[in-house]
Amino acid sequence: MQTRNISNACLNRLPVYLSFLKNLPKGEYPCISATSIAKALDLGEVQVRKDLSAACGSGRPKTGYDTDVLISSLESYLKYNRKDKVIIVGAGKLGKALLDYDGFEAVGLNVIAAFDNDPAVYGRTEHGIAIKPITQIKSFCAENGIKIGIIAVPDVFAQEVCDRMVESGISAIMNFAPVHLRAGDNVCIKNENIAANLALISKSVN
Amino acid sequence: MQTRNISNACLNRLPVYLSFLKNLPKGEYPCISATSIAKALDLGEVQVRKDLSAACGSGRPKTGYDTDVLISSLESYLKYNRKDKVIIVGAGKLGKALLDYDGFEAVGLNVIAAFDNDPAVYGRTEHGIAIKPITQIKSFCAENGIKIGIIAVPDVFAQEVCDRMVESGISAIMNFAPVHLRAGDNVCIKNENIAANLALISKSVN
Repeated sequence: MQTRNISNACLNRLPVYLSFLKNLPKGEYPCISATSIAKALDLGEVQVRKDLSAACGSGRPKTGYDTDVLISSLESYLKYNRKDKVIIVGAGKLGKALLDYDGFEAVGLNVIAAFDNDPAVYGRTEHGIAIKPITQIKSFCAENGIKIGIIAVPDVFAQEVCDRMVESGISAIMNFAPVHLRAGDNVCIKNENIAANLALISKSVN
Repeated sequence: MQTRNISNACLNRLPVYLSFLKNLPKGEYPCISATSIAKALDLGEVQVRKDLSAACGSGRPKTGYDTDVLISSLESYLKYNRKDKVIIVGAGKLGKALLDYDGFEAVGLNVIAAFDNDPAVYGRTEHGIAIKPITQIKSFCAENGIKIGIIAVPDVFAQEVCDRMVESGISAIMNFAPVHLRAGDNVCIKNENIAANLALISKSVN
């Protein structure tokens, strides 16, 4: 997606537009204007027009966008229609919460297995997802063509897990451990430091 | 913090510097230069110097920063030393994972209670945090001076929970439901759309 020359800031807003559009009351907004979207999301109208035209072309004068078409264009632009397989390493509380999280499907991600080093958690989740020994990660990823991994282990193990993921052919990693991970330039790592993010907003408002 | 006139991008990088510094091998780096930090974190040297000087002043020529002093300056700038109380609404799997998450303490946040509308989950967690009926949120927040809340409920309840939080005096909200929430200008909402964030990186690399 990055090759399409739209800014990261715009790219990060596209899922926001999409989630807004998909949460509109069913059938009430067959068409929607950039102005209405901007107003609802507290964004500038010029920015919304620019973002949407980068991803989906322009709306029609007066009526704006056909809502369903705009939703499909955004989903297609964000490649939510393509199903990609994901694994999680770490089946502690956070890992298990992510295994049960039902938001991945809507964005075209399918969590198919988790790995841990604790035999006590091996088996299957309520939803039938296998939790396997970490030693099996490389063969599993090779057999299943896995390119995407989530790190949900304690800080001290995060780099080791990252190395194992890269060795196993994974090139997109979401890391929940609050440590900086090193990997080659061809690996994209996104850090999700929940606590630091909450601290940033909470310490600034009161 | 926003009044100190540093950019949001810089503000978002400060926790990254801090986590990197705190994860250095104990005692091995009494001093550290902006150059080394930049190299380790794959950031531009000029940017690191600028970020650190905005928050902590300049390092010394040649030796750089005293590592411990830099850590305390960043913690103090980010107000991690100030303990703020937090509540979570939604004690399902994600809410429970957050209740057990031990990363909040390091950033000066103390999760003291959770609220839900399901009597089956009322009680206390393993760590002794109370899970209470949602109807008690207003009085609890007033008694405990709560300004910070986390929304971990299904999408359809998120706006209602947001309204209740605002009514209860909360002004900083982290929202895990993938919906856009509306609140007054004096309320700061940070959306954590885990699935969309993972999709953004995963769809762009393969």
